[in-house]
Amino acid sequence: MQKLEVIAHIHTDFKTKFGIPRQSGLVKGLLGTITFEPTYRNIEAFRGLEGFSHIWLLWDFSEAHRSDNSWSPTVRPPMLGGNQRMGVWATRSPFRPNSIGLSSVRLVDIQLHTQQGPKLIVEGADLMDGTPIYDIKPYLPFTDSHPDATGGFAQVANDTIEPLQVTIPDSILMRLPKEKQDSLKEILQADPRPHYQKDDTRIYTMEFAGIEIHFQIAGNNVQVLP
Amino acid sequence: MQKLEVIAHIHTDFKTKFGIPRQSGLVKGLLGTITFEPTYRNIEAFRGLEGFSHIWLLWDFSEAHRSDNSWSPTVRPPMLGGNQRMGVWATRSPFRPNSIGLSSVRLVDIQLHTQQGPKLIVEGADLMDGTPIYDIKPYLPFTDSHPDATGGFAQVANDTIEPLQVTIPDSILMRLPKEKQDSLKEILQADPRPHYQKDDTRIYTMEFAGIEIHFQIAGNNVQVLP
Repeated sequence: MQKLEVIAHIHTDFKTKFGIPRQSGLVKGLLGTITFEPTYRNIEAFRGLEGFSHIWLLWDFSEAHRSDNSWSPTVRPPMLGGNQRMGVWATRSPFRPNSIGLSSVRLVDIQLHTQQGPKLIVEGADLMDGTPIYDIKPYLPFTDSHPDATGGFAQVANDTIEPLQVTIPDSILMRLPKEKQDSLKEILQADPRPHYQKDDTRIYTMEFAGIEIHFQIAGNNVQVLP
Repeated sequence: MQKLEVIAHIHTDFKTKFGIPRQSGLVKGLLGTITFEPTYRNIEAFRGLEGFSHIWLLWDFSEAHRSDNSWSPTVRPPMLGGNQRMGVWATRSPFRPNSIGLSSVRLVDIQLHTQQGPKLIVEGADLMDGTPIYDIKPYLPFTDSHPDATGGFAQVANDTIEPLQVTIPDSILMRLPKEKQDSLKEILQADPRPHYQKDDTRIYTMEFAGIEIHFQIAGNNVQVLP
């Protein structure tokens, strides 16, 4: 038994779980800022990090804690439509015995001297705003990268997902900087709905980059409402 | 603050830390067996895992716990010769605030019905025999693999290490099965000595696969003693 201490938090454009990409790196341009707890603001701890293009984040699935310590051996992965059960060890589901998330992100910038101490700017994080971070490790391609690995049912599901057609009215676009316009489009292309919900008339609401996005999905078309 | 529960243990050929490859996957043919705690022996939890060629292990750096919860912002990576300090976030050192290890291994076999419940056979683990495991996740190449990532000082050090010349007498080889002979050779090629020790006359002792290996290193030559 080991107790984990929160070393940092990440700040992203996702105030709620709804809309967060299902894995890291799938939507480009999503920037996050990692700020450290006072105990961990020593800039010496970052020496050498500038040579790495990617880092690992180990983080807390803070939305998925169970008070009774129970666990379920199977989960229903959203990418399989939500009605097929898979073993928890075969998924990256948050509902697992030790709810630690693992994400690789691109290291965009290191800001050592801010008023809140050192900050890391990262791209591609599939994390909710405020998520506690337990560890940061350098990504080592010679041991971490296996481009020929077979990704099981997850790979098959990922390869067969067709991006949706997305229409966003100018009234919404003008409220977002250019790079966030592209990210929003990519988030909606990937169909953020829970997979068991396929109601054409339903209006979904997602908070992204500080604004409320309302949209409907009919067939392959996503229409963002003005 | 989150408490982690041990879900499994790995059994490997390394009874002590000395000789363990410095990252996972660097020495081929090293097999490990993962056995699960009684609570986690439900075979349903493994459904779908057979489609993945690689898995992630999150594990306990059980040899690196500090009783006083102190942490050092810098560490001396062995691959840099042990006399250069790097920030802890730029290294995979076990001496970090939350001592969780991260290793990708090849999934060789899944044995669901053994007397000790389900077992996983994995290849390439850089873990000591008996290491507690906290989580097993599938390796998803579309989000985990970044072959073009830059690996900082670690990559440079890894690329410039020249394998040593290894001589192993037949009296030792005949005590090991063929695939472990090759693994032993690769372990010694990578120079398992602590980098600050370069004493040609010293006899090092390493336990591997149940036998004691005694060796000397002079220049680029490793001589295993009969």
